[in-house]
Amino acid sequence: MAQSNQPDRHEHYLQTAAALVEKSLREQKGYRWLGELCELGPRLSGSQNSYRAILWAKAKMEALGLDRVILQPVMVPNWVRGKVEEARVIESTRVKGRKLAVAALGGSIATPKEGITAEVVEVKDFAELAALGEKGRGKIVLFNRPFAQHLTNTFAGYGKTVDQRVHGAVEAALAGGVAALVRSVTTRYDNVPHTGSLNYREGVAQIPAAAIGQIDADFLSAALKQDPRLKVRLKLSCQTLPDIQSYNVIGDLLGSQFPDEYIVVAGHYDSWDKGCGAHDDGAGCLQALEVPDLFKRLELRPKRTIRCVFYINEENGIRGALKYAQEADSLGLKHLAAIESDRGAFTPRGFSVEGDSAVIETLRGWLPYLEKADIDWVRPGGSGVDVSQIKNAKALIGYVPDSQRYFDFHHSDKDVYEAVNPREMQMGAAAMAILVYLLSEEGI
Amino acid sequence: MAQSNQPDRHEHYLQTAAALVEKSLREQKGYRWLGELCELGPRLSGSQNSYRAILWAKAKMEALGLDRVILQPVMVPNWVRGKVEEARVIESTRVKGRKLAVAALGGSIATPKEGITAEVVEVKDFAELAALGEKGRGKIVLFNRPFAQHLTNTFAGYGKTVDQRVHGAVEAALAGGVAALVRSVTTRYDNVPHTGSLNYREGVAQIPAAAIGQIDADFLSAALKQDPRLKVRLKLSCQTLPDIQSYNVIGDLLGSQFPDEYIVVAGHYDSWDKGCGAHDDGAGCLQALEVPDLFKRLELRPKRTIRCVFYINEENGIRGALKYAQEADSLGLKHLAAIESDRGAFTPRGFSVEGDSAVIETLRGWLPYLEKADIDWVRPGGSGVDVSQIKNAKALIGYVPDSQRYFDFHHSDKDVYEAVNPREMQMGAAAMAILVYLLSEEGI
Repeated sequence: MAQSNQPDRHEHYLQTAAALVEKSLREQKGYRWLGELCELGPRLSGSQNSYRAILWAKAKMEALGLDRVILQPVMVPNWVRGKVEEARVIESTRVKGRKLAVAALGGSIATPKEGITAEVVEVKDFAELAALGEKGRGKIVLFNRPFAQHLTNTFAGYGKTVDQRVHGAVEAALAGGVAALVRSVTTRYDNVPHTGSLNYREGVAQIPAAAIGQIDADFLSAALKQDPRLKVRLKLSCQTLPDIQSYNVIGDLLGSQFPDEYIVVAGHYDSWDKGCGAHDDGAGCLQALEVPDLFKRLELRPKRTIRCVFYINEENGIRGALKYAQEADSLGLKHLAAIESDRGAFTPRGFSVEGDSAVIETLRGWLPYLEKADIDWVRPGGSGVDVSQIKNAKALIGYVPDSQRYFDFHHSDKDVYEAVNPREMQMGAAAMAILVYLLSEEGI
Repeated sequence: MAQSNQPDRHEHYLQTAAALVEKSLREQKGYRWLGELCELGPRLSGSQNSYRAILWAKAKMEALGLDRVILQPVMVPNWVRGKVEEARVIESTRVKGRKLAVAALGGSIATPKEGITAEVVEVKDFAELAALGEKGRGKIVLFNRPFAQHLTNTFAGYGKTVDQRVHGAVEAALAGGVAALVRSVTTRYDNVPHTGSLNYREGVAQIPAAAIGQIDADFLSAALKQDPRLKVRLKLSCQTLPDIQSYNVIGDLLGSQFPDEYIVVAGHYDSWDKGCGAHDDGAGCLQALEVPDLFKRLELRPKRTIRCVFYINEENGIRGALKYAQEADSLGLKHLAAIESDRGAFTPRGFSVEGDSAVIETLRGWLPYLEKADIDWVRPGGSGVDVSQIKNAKALIGYVPDSQRYFDFHHSDKDVYEAVNPREMQMGAAAMAILVYLLSEEGI
């Protein structure tokens, strides 16, 4: 259907959408929850902080009066950064002793205790590295391709840049390199290292890899031009411990008519161990949590069950999402739709939908209501890493806020509470609440 | 017309739009100019800084190779803040000596040198003040109504809140008050005072008025509940000097076919004397300036003349806009369209157009090109304070970026270079450049 063809339903939806937006913006409740959550620090899978945060979430869902709160056990990887993390120019006629801002990439092995000391070879991409032939052997490879700033959508730019972070260690090892330094994949020029996961490949030697701040990457590049034989010493003490028990946190607001039909609204609860995972993805989780809470505050009892899921381990394993989807499948749970917020707490733009064209047309018909929260479009496209694991939903939906600033903060010490704008976060919560309400009333 | 019905024109426009976006984002030239401009400090009409900035703009336009650069003389008001600006709780059993964060409102008269010392009466609106009857007499009136946060568009929220800043001094005087303190009209909770103009009214006593930070407004409100007789002493040394000569800065890129048809692309160059007027409206001016410069960098010679105007004195007089419009009218200049950027350097959303429905349909037909810069809509609506003075244009257009964060910074010490995101600013420049290019090629 397009907008509801029952005039009183149409009016009710317009008013409900406006009420959801107003309440979300006026009370800024999710934003205040985010302040509490960020006090606990970052939430890397398996970390002590992540357990404190899981208990906080469970207690919060219970305090809000959700009808059912579940901790779903998940075994997660347990990579730890360790205390030693440094890089220095140690042999150079010009800049000896200069410290470089680095952060181990998630999953990296450690260096030996005394570090790895080697000459540096700089490349912009894997083709350039391959063309070097034997010149990479024994070197620290500096992958120094800047972020693809020219694209309107920063996720597209990220996609064009992040290969050096994900696959740099393998490519460097294949070239005989001893370690990799990767220019931080970020949109704003500064010297903060941005971490993120790397992949090793079976049969290829594992070498340590770290992100380097952009200013220091440029410094090192310039220094190499003056002094191509300079050496860098890299020390990392990170390690991968055995898998460890963790949890997805699930809270249900039961539907009045179809309690066995679920609408999942979700974020991922783990973060990298830099900053406090405010945008990525604490805010997404708390926007999701505000959906059932907004319904309660407005005394809206949805027809279908609203299931709020805080997935664990999106960043380095998606074990939480796999576990949830598996169990849901084996229990034969009926998911009408699942929505994920994992693109930062920025101003709303649209919803990106995996579903057939009839589903997309139905959602487009709701734009007159979604526009109350500045949603301008509904388009076919990817949803979210976590919800896309669910097998039987009619619609998998990604909440799409504006992308311009996301990678300024992403996976770094800059992803803190202060980086989140309260109104932008609350607009997102309202946008999701409107869509979830319509789904719960109208079905698809 | 809708999108161009000549296939090769359509393809050319798509490619040109994409090229404008890419160049703007990749080179971030306007953003770097903004850094230079902000080094000069704020640019209140008539201030020394404003002259330095005017000379900087003229030199910049000449260095960029615009075909004609003009300083258009304008007499502007000359209000100066002065050195003394403070408020303290001085008689109270509980919080004596507590300093309050205040900033004189633009246009305010000074207090006597020894300050104004009086009891405080708090109201939320003018009706509440009127209902107080004689209780306002001899008091400092604290207008303490919070920003209307519940509305999606913050300009609408501003409109519902700013009456206390604009008319508070008059209403307080009518109630017998001796001074006015006005809760800062801003969206983000902190203690920074946000200034802005006030209006006095002929026949009503002029009393001094200042903005107060939100935290201190709440503090004072709570203190008044404990101790209703507490007194505040307000000292302001601001004054209005005689009008002074200033200038609009105008730069033309001449059209190849219709050099006498102008497309104005504009911002206002003056700012308040807090922060450095980065969002309001240094960025708007430099987005406008980047339009002809992007054309030059891409070797696009427009058919019509692109006229970049930095209007002086939007904040407290709009004398620059009145002068420009008057002279244009008396010279019979032909303005095809005029576009203003004065809503901050945030991510693009749309264009708001004063023009007949055929004009709006024409512009809507260009959405396939404008979408390259994330422009989602063209709607009828207000353009900009400055360009709306122009009498004979077929379309007066406001560039509309996202509004969520604008009033966080507006008219305060927070409106600095660091508050501007380079990508967001550059997306806006690209959006305007695409629209101006289409106007210059197609006409309307």
